[in-house]
Amino acid sequence: MTNQNPLLTGASLDQPTVLLDPAKAKTNIHRMVHKMKNAGVRFRPHFKTHQSAEIGTWFQNEGVDCITVSSVDMAYYFAEHGWDDITIATPVNPRQLSRIDELAKGITLHILVDTPEVLPLIANTISTPIQVWVKIDVGFHRVGIPMHDLDAIEHLVLAIQEIPVLHFEGLLAYAGQTYAAHGIDAVKTIFEQSVQGLLTIKQHLHQLGVEGVAVSMGDTPSGSLLDNFTGVDEMRHGNFVFYDLMQWQMGTCSDWDIAVAVACPVLGKYPKDNRIAIYGGCVHLSKDSLVDAQGKTIFGYVGQREEDRWGAVVSEAPVVSLSQEIGLLQVTDPWFSRIHIGDILLILPIHSCLTCNLFPAYHTLEGQVISKFRNS
Amino acid sequence: MTNQNPLLTGASLDQPTVLLDPAKAKTNIHRMVHKMKNAGVRFRPHFKTHQSAEIGTWFQNEGVDCITVSSVDMAYYFAEHGWDDITIATPVNPRQLSRIDELAKGITLHILVDTPEVLPLIANTISTPIQVWVKIDVGFHRVGIPMHDLDAIEHLVLAIQEIPVLHFEGLLAYAGQTYAAHGIDAVKTIFEQSVQGLLTIKQHLHQLGVEGVAVSMGDTPSGSLLDNFTGVDEMRHGNFVFYDLMQWQMGTCSDWDIAVAVACPVLGKYPKDNRIAIYGGCVHLSKDSLVDAQGKTIFGYVGQREEDRWGAVVSEAPVVSLSQEIGLLQVTDPWFSRIHIGDILLILPIHSCLTCNLFPAYHTLEGQVISKFRNS
Repeated sequence: MTNQNPLLTGASLDQPTVLLDPAKAKTNIHRMVHKMKNAGVRFRPHFKTHQSAEIGTWFQNEGVDCITVSSVDMAYYFAEHGWDDITIATPVNPRQLSRIDELAKGITLHILVDTPEVLPLIANTISTPIQVWVKIDVGFHRVGIPMHDLDAIEHLVLAIQEIPVLHFEGLLAYAGQTYAAHGIDAVKTIFEQSVQGLLTIKQHLHQLGVEGVAVSMGDTPSGSLLDNFTGVDEMRHGNFVFYDLMQWQMGTCSDWDIAVAVACPVLGKYPKDNRIAIYGGCVHLSKDSLVDAQGKTIFGYVGQREEDRWGAVVSEAPVVSLSQEIGLLQVTDPWFSRIHIGDILLILPIHSCLTCNLFPAYHTLEGQVISKFRNS
Repeated sequence: MTNQNPLLTGASLDQPTVLLDPAKAKTNIHRMVHKMKNAGVRFRPHFKTHQSAEIGTWFQNEGVDCITVSSVDMAYYFAEHGWDDITIATPVNPRQLSRIDELAKGITLHILVDTPEVLPLIANTISTPIQVWVKIDVGFHRVGIPMHDLDAIEHLVLAIQEIPVLHFEGLLAYAGQTYAAHGIDAVKTIFEQSVQGLLTIKQHLHQLGVEGVAVSMGDTPSGSLLDNFTGVDEMRHGNFVFYDLMQWQMGTCSDWDIAVAVACPVLGKYPKDNRIAIYGGCVHLSKDSLVDAQGKTIFGYVGQREEDRWGAVVSEAPVVSLSQEIGLLQVTDPWFSRIHIGDILLILPIHSCLTCNLFPAYHTLEGQVISKFRNS
């Protein structure tokens, strides 16, 4: 335990801080970019997980030149940092059309549409050529036109084609139901059925004379677990940059792949039930949770401290409840003895997108502070 | 529906925004301050709910001169805005003792201790007189010494008294288990048992010659539902300033008392299952939830739009799921017809503390933007 990174022991930390292991994140990026390249798929990673211009350059260094974001503000942030090909992957917000039009003047901008109702609003406001995906619901039932509703899809595509500034690009879907799937075969089945549904629509559009229809998919379980993306032109997943306990529990990543941890000071020890209080609550970790094999709700696990990074999940030290600023762990006897007031515990996040969203910056294990976008 | 507030119809909004109704918040403050005054209790409201210097002045105008906060940074923020009597109501963080000492030079600062382990650290670092509460666990089992453990409490109190810069102030507890109580009688029982426990400790300390022991309590259900606070010197609750759906479900407030709502643009309508998609996800509303009478998990309800404010909870329009930026409502047929793409829906928050924490500012119905503290 000598020569330990001072950030890991917390010598320089006094409150909850997101630590980032750049080596892990860069490995996650490298691996995924090359997998997509080998699969012959355009990779347009979602940047809502890290939301950082600096981390964006790590993707650029691997050859990534187009990205996905989840809000207009985030699109502006990355455009200001040099990205010139951006998809805003939420259904277009009719109240932000002027800002979208403004942004499209400087970059190649892609938006999502899933209803003809917004088209007159778009036609009235957008003056700059813009790429439009039709959002298809492949079974996640969040947004999009149900994939079997060929009439509605056809109607929308033809209506888009009648608006001169809009270029219909293709069919975009998110098979978020893979998060509830058990095992690689279940993920594969969902992914293949989704792609098949999109290809059926593409075939239908072909019969109507609509050609060049691209297919865009992208969720981290499919992107991580599968190797064959036949029929798909573009993948958009993003969580893999950091991964998290949700992905680890699904088997999408190993615990060693998790690239972020929240460093939390220990405030109290309560021997009666082996409870440990940390400075680190739902305003730091987010309130997302997983259910463990015993049916218990868990808000994080301690990451085992290795010499110069964190490693395995310590399942003996789960975070079992959160209030606004305080988290409670319930740990085994050996861990209770090992943890002392004033220590720093490294808490692996359940859902890295939400945890990182709560912080203004990352502190890397190399001692750098990396700023990021923040909701305003 | 004429002359409607433009913030309510959303004429000036294009993305999720926390709206604040100052009239409701000021009424909530006025009512609570006077109730505490009539009860003869010092009121030290928790400011972690609103986290705003400007809203703090609304309390000042009612005569409040001391406050509670949940972090050292928040204490600095309010000290910079003129508050000179502040309790940091989380167990003292040994890593922030220098900053605590620095802050105590300018104001009357109160900290919480629940273990003798931190005392040597405090004695080594703190050079400025500081007020110390002993944190007692009255059954919530988060932090604090269990109230029946008189030996441990006595040991800690006597040890505090041996450190010259520390002034032992009394016993502080949080009966958070009232949030799980059903009805006013259950809340009353929890509150009275908690106070009885603290008074027993006080009596025990009296027998040891420790006099002037104050008792501090404070949770919004007790503070709102009860009228008799006999035995209590200080109350610290804070959520009442805005209230929220959690308090409404418990009967702690009426839906008309809820002083904040998140204005969210409607992005999509999905007739098959009366689903409505809004721009407003867990990065705006937080992932806190309640379970309704049918056992369904709910992340918010639409607030009925009245002429110049929002009013009743629309139980026909619940938010049933959240992703990072998008929320989904499942609404009744009449509401499905009434809601249009591009509309603004006013979503009442489940837990106002967490929702407000996610935003940098409030937009009041009077057209003012009120800034607030933000975790850095």
